[in-house]
Amino acid sequence: MASPPRPLLKELLAKPSEEIVSFLAGIYEHSPWVAEALVAEAFAAKDDLSTTITTISQLAATLRAIVDAASPETKLILLRAHPDLSNKVNTALTAESQEEQSKGGLQSMSADEVATFTKYNDTYKAKFSFPFILAVRNATKYTVLTALEGRVNHSVETELATALQQVHKIAWMRLLAGIDTSDAQGFLTCHVLDTAIGCPADNMRITLVRQVDGASWNFRTNADGRLEGGPALKGGAEMQVGRYEWTFHVGDYFCSKGTYIAGTPFLDVVPLQFGIDNPDDHYHVPLLVSPWSYSTYRGS
Amino acid sequence: MASPPRPLLKELLAKPSEEIVSFLAGIYEHSPWVAEALVAEAFAAKDDLSTTITTISQLAATLRAIVDAASPETKLILLRAHPDLSNKVNTALTAESQEEQSKGGLQSMSADEVATFTKYNDTYKAKFSFPFILAVRNATKYTVLTALEGRVNHSVETELATALQQVHKIAWMRLLAGIDTSDAQGFLTCHVLDTAIGCPADNMRITLVRQVDGASWNFRTNADGRLEGGPALKGGAEMQVGRYEWTFHVGDYFCSKGTYIAGTPFLDVVPLQFGIDNPDDHYHVPLLVSPWSYSTYRGS
Amino acid sequence: MASPPRPLLKELLAKPSEEIVSFLAGIYEHSPWVAEALVAEAFAAKDDLSTTITTISQLAATLRAIVDAASPETKLILLRAHPDLSNKVNTALTAESQEEQSKGGLQSMSADEVATFTKYNDTYKAKFSFPFILAVRNATKYTVLTALEGRVNHSVETELATALQQVHKIAWMRLLAGIDTSDAQGFLTCHVLDTAIGCPADNMRITLVRQVDGASWNFRTNADGRLEGGPALKGGAEMQVGRYEWTFHVGDYFCSKGTYIAGTPFLDVVPLQFGIDNPDDHYHVPLLVSPWSYSTYRGS
Amino acid sequence: MASPPRPLLKELLAKPSEEIVSFLAGIYEHSPWVAEALVAEAFAAKDDLSTTITTISQLAATLRAIVDAASPETKLILLRAHPDLSNKVNTALTAESQEEQSKGGLQSMSADEVATFTKYNDTYKAKFSFPFILAVRNATKYTVLTALEGRVNHSVETELATALQQVHKIAWMRLLAGIDTSDAQGFLTCHVLDTAIGCPADNMRITLVRQVDGASWNFRTNADGRLEGGPALKGGAEMQVGRYEWTFHVGDYFCSKGTYIAGTPFLDVVPLQFGIDNPDDHYHVPLLVSPWSYSTYRGS
Repeated sequence: MASPPRPLLKELLAKPSEEIVSFLAGIYEHSPWVAEALVAEAFAAKDDLSTTITTISQLAATLRAIVDAASPETKLILLRAHPDLSNKVNTALTAESQEEQSKGGLQSMSADEVATFTKYNDTYKAKFSFPFILAVRNATKYTVLTALEGRVNHSVETELATALQQVHKIAWMRLLAGIDTSDAQGFLTCHVLDTAIGCPADNMRITLVRQVDGASWNFRTNADGRLEGGPALKGGAEMQVGRYEWTFHVGDYFCSKGTYIAGTPFLDVVPLQFGIDNPDDHYHVPLLVSPWSYSTYRGS
Repeated sequence: MASPPRPLLKELLAKPSEEIVSFLAGIYEHSPWVAEALVAEAFAAKDDLSTTITTISQLAATLRAIVDAASPETKLILLRAHPDLSNKVNTALTAESQEEQSKGGLQSMSADEVATFTKYNDTYKAKFSFPFILAVRNATKYTVLTALEGRVNHSVETELATALQQVHKIAWMRLLAGIDTSDAQGFLTCHVLDTAIGCPADNMRITLVRQVDGASWNFRTNADGRLEGGPALKGGAEMQVGRYEWTFHVGDYFCSKGTYIAGTPFLDVVPLQFGIDNPDDHYHVPLLVSPWSYSTYRGS
Repeated sequence: MASPPRPLLKELLAKPSEEIVSFLAGIYEHSPWVAEALVAEAFAAKDDLSTTITTISQLAATLRAIVDAASPETKLILLRAHPDLSNKVNTALTAESQEEQSKGGLQSMSADEVATFTKYNDTYKAKFSFPFILAVRNATKYTVLTALEGRVNHSVETELATALQQVHKIAWMRLLAGIDTSDAQGFLTCHVLDTAIGCPADNMRITLVRQVDGASWNFRTNADGRLEGGPALKGGAEMQVGRYEWTFHVGDYFCSKGTYIAGTPFLDVVPLQFGIDNPDDHYHVPLLVSPWSYSTYRGS
Repeated sequence: MASPPRPLLKELLAKPSEEIVSFLAGIYEHSPWVAEALVAEAFAAKDDLSTTITTISQLAATLRAIVDAASPETKLILLRAHPDLSNKVNTALTAESQEEQSKGGLQSMSADEVATFTKYNDTYKAKFSFPFILAVRNATKYTVLTALEGRVNHSVETELATALQQVHKIAWMRLLAGIDTSDAQGFLTCHVLDTAIGCPADNMRITLVRQVDGASWNFRTNADGRLEGGPALKGGAEMQVGRYEWTFHVGDYFCSKGTYIAGTPFLDVVPLQFGIDNPDDHYHVPLLVSPWSYSTYRGS
């Protein structure tokens, strides 16, 4: 059965209030009041949501602020509305948490792991009085177990803040899953600096692969070490949320400079995997490289 | 037809002088005099080569010193003994240079690339009076073309030094190809530091793959961020010359610390490819990592 | 009037319970109950504190756990026991907070800054119902203003966790100020790697200065790029809490290697200032350096 | 006695040929033929030097190419024209080499150091048949001794290339000393990235000091982590060749973010010294920083 087409953000926010509320009702677990407050506040302020909110991260921030401003009791209810990870067959699971939870790989735990999980999970619930919540996309049973073991030792105040952060992260991931971001404005750039010679690395071959569909692009650096032809990806249709990989042909580059490298070079083809989480952002993912070292970072 | 078994270094150096010379005769292109000098100098000094030379890099350094001490005229003859890369069907090619040259991918050049290559190669020979020499293992036609274009602009003095460096590198690669290094003493270590929290990254899963045969190893960091159980590879049988890849489970690690990472983390699984060139060395290949940046280097 | 001599940790913990409580009573602001609980718990467990707690960070962690385990109401009383930074002439200030507060430089604020501060401080108190707490050693009025402006936007849960973290940090700084750490077991090491050549940087001159008294030490790296003669500082008498500065003679080093550096080198004498906060820890403060880049980190 | 005013590059190159030659005669030691060839080549090509050469690095590159294209014999004469560093009272020293040599601190050597120097210097001359040449500005006797000990082991080809590189560097430094660069077009920029939070570091205070005269500038980063108001230094009058120091108020910044830092922060005020060698270049000198690590590099 086909999913309904995902709306663009501007399409969603131009809909009647009831449809907006209905669409966003499940973003915070069992808490349609968040979406209702969004619409009510806009109505009170005579705001047109499709004008005041133009990016998905603005929408997320507005919903987040509504939750953050709620009373302690309301937040506790929100936390408690989340399913207990230990209850694998809980039929009250929403579709969203079901999908996310399955990726945690709880089903693949050994008996020993289940025992460990159960022990810490019980301690957690007794100490904090709400279930252990983890935004589990891309996480494994290893992550779940280690995260639980770590967070059970938190002070009550720290864990309360941490659990709410996880709730906001789940909301963000649900927004991204539900909204078409092909009109987003983000872009991806690169820069390669040669830290052995102290100059931009020119004429280096670079490839980029989008892991979800294997789409790939070929680039070459210009005299300033940046990609000839501007951004590697431009706009939401190209720059989809997900994982990407640069491949830098570093060995060839140093060979062309006459820089000494070993027979089997320490660095030759340098892979660099990174994730794009916000399709409206500028991601600058550079490489600083000598024949014997490299570094990268999320730049701007 | 099977290759003869490669001797261990100590087996080679325990052989009669003529066999040593015969074995090493082709290490420097068409220049058996280098191996002859090695044996003659040892004889004059009453040295037993199998005692004075115990690692392949010592052997390479000794041969290199013989070449470096030769007269300018002798070195020029050595350079000129190398095949012209443009002559793809030169039947006088030695087996060694034939194999190395084929990997340069000259055969895959387009007509335009051949024309560019020929132009620069002719200029090179006219300017320097010896052929363009490039240690080409792992290099591509792109490397050959860019290296040639870069080096043709060198001053005579710089290019003479560069060409001799390439000759020494070819000799090193031929030694590694001919000698069994399974008794080498090198080892490989790792260390992961969390630069966001400022502490060793404990309990991080790491895998290592040896690319030549796909052999793999699984590790976990201890409280000091080092591999439980000591070196990842120990001794020449494990630590073969070639390319390797670490995979660091960085996303899981930060999740276990409660450090904020994005829904689609900027860094999740970090691949790190590196080459081992000297099976007798200690390779320390660490990772310094925050959720938004990382660096690595050849350590010691 | 001379201060009483500071006791060593083992001297303090060997004292009668009442004296321990009296000594530690002010570590948490107006909250002698924390020290009383320390002593009471040890008594209940038949522990000898001078045996079970052997470092100042263990003592801090034990006190911290007592606070973390207290009820939400008790923690709120603790937070509210802290002086309001706006009340510069509050005569109820304890000696400790008076000294720390004066370093915030509130007295040097301009009229505009005072107005800004007052506005945010009022908002803060109204929103969170406890005073703005900042561990202010080494901070300036700029820090106070920016920290206040940033934290006033926190959610209630996040700010509660942040404020308690500041309270624990103040406690740590008071412990360090009150206890003689000359018997601590920490040490300071260094390592210099040349990322241009890919090897340890040998024979580099390094100096170390302790800023509080100008004491200085001269070092030279060995073949492994580490300090000849072992740790730079060893034990609490040398490794006092405070600020230090390495000076690395990087320009001279590269000159000795024949590596190309500019006439006025990009890097010549590299200063590296760092703080030692825990006299029982191992601080590894290395330098990774090429003629055109460097990095450092808190290692282990 | 006052020095004659230094001409701007465009003033120098607009002078009659004889005056250009006279001015540049000493740039390469005792080798006025280099300057003569510059003028002769321009005359032959009907070039107006003040049009074809507009930056001091273009002038240096043109002179360098003349030297590089000379015969091996001519280059050897050039190398041999340099004074022997061992001859401290050589009255034939040019003014330029006298000033540079004095900074090497040869006069401050101990008897042991003189003996070591003499031994290696004699070996050097015997092996290479030209004097040991070192561009010594900012170097010390330690540098001279270590450089000599290192380079005496070079192969003849490598040392010939190295010595000529030093000669070109001396020429560059003499050009900079002789020509007024106040009309140069270079500029200095900065960028600060927070690698703990993964964003630009906004609102960080930074100061810049020019060491030669103590001139200083105060900056604050904007939302993109760059300096409000554009380049820190713009044009040759501000961006003089010499040493500079950034001071980054990193501790205050992290305090404002609520990021955890120690009571005595590992990083607080970060000094970063760097040299500007080419007044026509863009120098980008950024800082990547977490509370526990930082790195910098010569960017573009």
